Amino acid sequence: MAGAGGIGKRVWIIAEGWIPSGGLSDHTLMPHETACILNTGNREATIELTVFFSDRDPVRYELRVPPRRTRHVRFDGLLDPPIPRDTDYSSLFVSDVPVVVQHTRLDSRRAEIALMTTVAYGE
Amino acid sequence: MAGAGGIGKRVWIIAEGWIPSGGLSDHTLMPHETACILNTGNREATIELTVFFSDRDPVRYELRVPPRRTRHVRFDGLLDPPIPRDTDYSSLFVSDVPVVVQHTRLDSRRAEIALMTTVAYGE
Amino acid sequence: MAGAGGIGKRVWIIAEGWIPSGGLSDHTLMPHETACILNTGNREATIELTVFFSDRDPVRYELRVPPRRTRHVRFDGLLDPPIPRDTDYSSLFVSDVPVVVQHTRLDSRRAEIALMTTVAYGE
Amino acid sequence: MAGAGGIGKRVWIIAEGWIPSGGLSDHTLMPHETACILNTGNREATIELTVFFSDRDPVRYELRVPPRRTRHVRFDGLLDPPIPRDTDYSSLFVSDVPVVVQHTRLDSRRAEIALMTTVAYGE
Repeated sequence: MAGAGGIGKRVWIIAEGWIPSGGLSDHTLMPHETACILNTGNREATIELTVFFSDRDPVRYELRVPPRRTRHVRFDGLLDPPIPRDTDYSSLFVSDVPVVVQHTRLDSRRAEIALMTTVAYGE
Repeated sequence: MAGAGGIGKRVWIIAEGWIPSGGLSDHTLMPHETACILNTGNREATIELTVFFSDRDPVRYELRVPPRRTRHVRFDGLLDPPIPRDTDYSSLFVSDVPVVVQHTRLDSRRAEIALMTTVAYGE
Repeated sequence: MAGAGGIGKRVWIIAEGWIPSGGLSDHTLMPHETACILNTGNREATIELTVFFSDRDPVRYELRVPPRRTRHVRFDGLLDPPIPRDTDYSSLFVSDVPVVVQHTRLDSRRAEIALMTTVAYGE
Repeated sequence: MAGAGGIGKRVWIIAEGWIPSGGLSDHTLMPHETACILNTGNREATIELTVFFSDRDPVRYELRVPPRRTRHVRFDGLLDPPIPRDTDYSSLFVSDVPVVVQHTRLDSRRAEIALMTTVAYGE
């Protein structure tokens, strides 16, 4: 039952966005933000990601999530163009099939780490 | 009044999932993720939990929550099969009665702990 | 405009609940959980709070929030009966007027503090 | 497509509010709370922000977010009047166009930092 048509929404927004510079250097412990995307349906999801800034025009990326798979997209893994650190941003996901998006940040500017998460705003 | 038919939804998704290896060894302080499930109604909830991965087929579990009780399910307590650490996953809960699901992670890879929580996506 | 009829919902659930023992002893830094309740309307809110456990019957409390005021209710301030520490619980708020409920935990079992928050599930 | 009419809602509430005194003194690391606001539409957003307290009347501010831009508003940057530290508050955003609001707190009263975030309650 769960996989029939795919669960979720097609438009998601993460209004918070800010990747600190500095911090720990290990890949999983360096400061980063992630969008966790679940596609429960039977068709691949093609997602247009638009990243907004406070003082310049938005930029676009394309993501794909296979059917019945999850994909955890690190924003510091977006390369064309890269998202600058220490910069306010927000992100908009528009998918061609229903998905669910959850946002996390890991911050390790100090010796310890801090975490935060929220389900994105879906519509 | 509160317990009449049970409050909440029957389908819930936690798109984030990742249990770090390492960290503190005390049971309540070792890195873990939890799904907190509240059943306010007068009938036991039977919940099908499907865990999705990035590179392999989903796996299924069955959970039960008694009437008018809460159950905090640790993902590292799921044993058949166990969920591997350091691995991206997402989870889908389909209940036969309305419930509410909230997600938390405690991370203690460093000497201190970090926490995060969000209400799951409900539908 | 904002204060006309009051914004929000009348039923809210926080499925996560767990107050650690130990930690720092300063009142604002000791481990605690809080329900932040905003009443934007012009009438006092009377709220029935039901706390659910995993292995015993729920208990009830009554809260009041004046018109156009916020109230941040610490669960360790509920005294009749007190909520035990190191114990899984969930909470249900049923208000006679619309309000908004947000949940936080501060954890200081280790030397540092960890925080988490989410808007509660509203219905 | 994404920028046509603007995505989100016009009324948002953050019930939690509390800016600790003390902590680190660096601007990005001192304790603060932020409302991240995304305006995906083609018209500037004018937002009336009302801050509620537990024991006094609410105060008002006006914010603007340009079209297709994000704005991360620090509550300790509101100056007329300033929001006192160590004080419970909540906030209500009423916008003339749809926006999305997400809330974060960074706490550095101890040597390390703690973070929390949630999408605000939208209506």
